[in-house]
Amino acid sequence: MSKIFVDACFGKETPYTPVWMMRQAGRYLPEYQEVRSEAGSFLNLCHDPQKACEVTLQPVRRLDVDAAILFSDILVIPNEMGMQLDFVEGEGPVFEKPIRNQEALEALRTGEDAAKRLHYVYETIELIKKELSDDKALIGFTGAPWTLVTYMIEGQGSKTYTICKKLIYTEPEFMHEILSKVTEVVKLYLEKQIQAGVDVVQIFDSWAAALEKSKYMEFSWFYIKEIASYLKSKYPHIPIIVFPKGIPAYLDEIDGEFDVFGVDWSTPMALAKHYLGDRYVLQGNMEPCRLYSKEATYECVTSIANTMRKGRHIFNLGHGILPDVPVENAQYFVNLCKEVSQR
Amino acid sequence: MSKIFVDACFGKETPYTPVWMMRQAGRYLPEYQEVRSEAGSFLNLCHDPQKACEVTLQPVRRLDVDAAILFSDILVIPNEMGMQLDFVEGEGPVFEKPIRNQEALEALRTGEDAAKRLHYVYETIELIKKELSDDKALIGFTGAPWTLVTYMIEGQGSKTYTICKKLIYTEPEFMHEILSKVTEVVKLYLEKQIQAGVDVVQIFDSWAAALEKSKYMEFSWFYIKEIASYLKSKYPHIPIIVFPKGIPAYLDEIDGEFDVFGVDWSTPMALAKHYLGDRYVLQGNMEPCRLYSKEATYECVTSIANTMRKGRHIFNLGHGILPDVPVENAQYFVNLCKEVSQR
Repeated sequence: MSKIFVDACFGKETPYTPVWMMRQAGRYLPEYQEVRSEAGSFLNLCHDPQKACEVTLQPVRRLDVDAAILFSDILVIPNEMGMQLDFVEGEGPVFEKPIRNQEALEALRTGEDAAKRLHYVYETIELIKKELSDDKALIGFTGAPWTLVTYMIEGQGSKTYTICKKLIYTEPEFMHEILSKVTEVVKLYLEKQIQAGVDVVQIFDSWAAALEKSKYMEFSWFYIKEIASYLKSKYPHIPIIVFPKGIPAYLDEIDGEFDVFGVDWSTPMALAKHYLGDRYVLQGNMEPCRLYSKEATYECVTSIANTMRKGRHIFNLGHGILPDVPVENAQYFVNLCKEVSQR
Repeated sequence: MSKIFVDACFGKETPYTPVWMMRQAGRYLPEYQEVRSEAGSFLNLCHDPQKACEVTLQPVRRLDVDAAILFSDILVIPNEMGMQLDFVEGEGPVFEKPIRNQEALEALRTGEDAAKRLHYVYETIELIKKELSDDKALIGFTGAPWTLVTYMIEGQGSKTYTICKKLIYTEPEFMHEILSKVTEVVKLYLEKQIQAGVDVVQIFDSWAAALEKSKYMEFSWFYIKEIASYLKSKYPHIPIIVFPKGIPAYLDEIDGEFDVFGVDWSTPMALAKHYLGDRYVLQGNMEPCRLYSKEATYECVTSIANTMRKGRHIFNLGHGILPDVPVENAQYFVNLCKEVSQR
């Protein structure tokens, strides 16, 4: 059975423009909260294929979105490379021993050694594929090497990324060494996700906007392109989505062997269409806070539909759905997207 | 005596391109640390005209920058509007009782009542003007209403600004009411700074990038333009600098009666020049982390000089200088800017 979401990723005409939401398996859903609390900790939930499968499927059942996205976290990668990871309540993820020198870098697991330890992710994918209906796509994902490395070096989320940036401006070779090691793991990780059954992969570069243009191209985009080329050469039938958040001023230098460009809410859709619309399918870009209001949702969905004129587009938010959004409004958004784009 | 900095703000030809740094009166300077520690608290330092004058002048003495910027904090405004303000170590500014409803808004001091309570700022300006040499300019400043209001509503710094955004999408009239009240105070505050002796004013919109384009224009830029028009009509000889941080995708809609547009580091200089260079003098835009390395500083300063070709430009960083930058590197930056732009 053909999947409308996969078709849309390749720019094929579909009966309507498909829709999903970043973080759709998340805290705004009471059924998610229930499983999350049974799991005890966030990391437990990521490690438990049965439970991760369940929360992955919840938004598909509830909202009838066109794609499920694997429930996991980008930081399981550095975790399985050997870095102790804790999710501290109210503070977010913390690596107690960040990577700041050659010795710490050498001590990490690399390549296949790290990728195979992520077996619980591959098992989750297999479970989901058994349950997910044939017309829905399953999206696998990873963090982009740059985004992963910000956590590995800073040790936690950061406002200024000064430790990373000091390395970029004073020890660029060392920074490239870290990024290369992470890139090798990410390639194998996505490859194993594909082998386990995902239909599409998405690369999240959540902290793209932390770097000025020339350094972004050199220290992040370069590695995303390398990952995309590697996968495309082996798995041309698997669409690749990239989502570098917050870089509207860098779009004129974006190229590479991927299929879909995720447009965040700070990048006007018309601007993304101008620079990328001929070469890539665009995904996004509603400001997630518009989900607080049906009127604001309507205004944006119809505006995006009008800008894209039903062509080469996938509906989504411009960032993850927030925990305090009413489920009813999320449902309204999904229904509206399908309705306005009916052919 | 003519001030090279004021001339440059008006686009007049100057012997070299002037230079200053955002947060130049700050923690990277040991002499600042000393006064700061004598003051006891950050807010004490803002409230003490002698000490605030001293730290304002320190970077002029040490680095020979072309402009001093008044030492203060943008949050003294809501503080004098009646909001209890605390600077919590490691957490930043906190308003214990944020403004979330009509009653809280009504309780605030407004207009002249609030503006006159900021007398310690005007006294600081008078002291600085007595000591600052005639060839240097003194920059007064304010936060933009939107940026101030994010703190007043969220109660502290925010990653997501969801409380503010929920208001924007569900109670836009209430949000406009808050912004209008703050705008009235800001107008009078800058006017009193001018009457006390500042040569230039800068409006910092530090959290401009929190809003999508249409909402930014409506809820922030509109009020910045109103303030600029008000000042321009009364004080046409005082240059106005605006610094809305992180909105490269919104530049095509920027207009208003100001003189200088501050370019943050995420906005390539060539892009700002393309949209704004004919109408406004541009200020900026070196990534502050480049100051960790003289080579990276040299590369950027010469690149900016080349892009601007000595025309209609003021050197600066694209955001504030960081506390751990060596003073020697800051000195190198200032000297280099003057050197490469000699006529």
